[in-house]
Amino acid sequence: MSATADVRKQRLVRFIRRVWDEGDVEAADAWLAATYRIHHDPGDPWDGMTLDRAAFRDRVRQSRAAFPDQRFDIQGLFADGEGVAMSWLWAATHAGDLPAFPASGRTIRMSGLTVYFFDAADRLTGHWQVIDRLGVYRQLRQACAGAPPGGGSPASPD
Amino acid sequence: MSATADVRKQRLVRFIRRVWDEGDVEAADAWLAATYRIHHDPGDPWDGMTLDRAAFRDRVRQSRAAFPDQRFDIQGLFADGEGVAMSWLWAATHAGDLPAFPASGRTIRMSGLTVYFFDAADRLTGHWQVIDRLGVYRQLRQACAGAPPGGGSPASPD
Repeated sequence: MSATADVRKQRLVRFIRRVWDEGDVEAADAWLAATYRIHHDPGDPWDGMTLDRAAFRDRVRQSRAAFPDQRFDIQGLFADGEGVAMSWLWAATHAGDLPAFPASGRTIRMSGLTVYFFDAADRLTGHWQVIDRLGVYRQLRQACAGAPPGGGSPASPD
Repeated sequence: MSATADVRKQRLVRFIRRVWDEGDVEAADAWLAATYRIHHDPGDPWDGMTLDRAAFRDRVRQSRAAFPDQRFDIQGLFADGEGVAMSWLWAATHAGDLPAFPASGRTIRMSGLTVYFFDAADRLTGHWQVIDRLGVYRQLRQACAGAPPGGGSPASPD
């Protein structure tokens, strides 16, 4: 493994721990280039956008609001060229309200793969990501099945 | 890039073209180890299974049946250690029936990321994958909205 690949992997692991797991959004600047582009992230509200550092912090805050104890379990890191691909599992308590899914207190599990892109100074410039959103939707629907609002018997994507 | 990484990327691109795009399942043996493990692929019927070569061919045939003209558009390849991560877009005509979604003739688009694992002889031993299944489900629901069977007004995961 090249020195650059090694540095980027180590930086990425610390970034995930500190910013996404622990929610220390003020620390994010240490890892970010001036702008961060969300190249591809289907279903994400910021898909296709280029964020400055303040907008990036807002994204992390909003993304973590319903899942304040979230933890990423990194499965693999594949560094090559300008990118580091990361496979991951994720778990969190559904402790805050989401649209159509009021806080349930249940543990929600998720998985995904993210390619993080770096500049020559090893700062993050953006990502290309796919998440198992259908799996999350099914869990949230089940977690909120006894909740009063919504009603009806939703058709299943199963 | 190391010689091994280069060989694996080239082999992987040819495998995707020949087997998954063109549907030449009989040719798959040239790329496969004796067994192929689906380490992680949420929503896939073969998730968690270890397939021999005959079972692998069946998986490709069944996966392609509803989408015989499918094409993968490889976005990035990241080779590191035993794996090559591949980001991809996909498009196909919904030409065959799926459970709850009769053939619509519509173009369906999808994206995902797959980590392919290789042995020392550069043969494929398995994968770890996440696909945007929620996006596909929404497209199929829309494509089949005018279709007679099913009925009702399905609740939306939007």
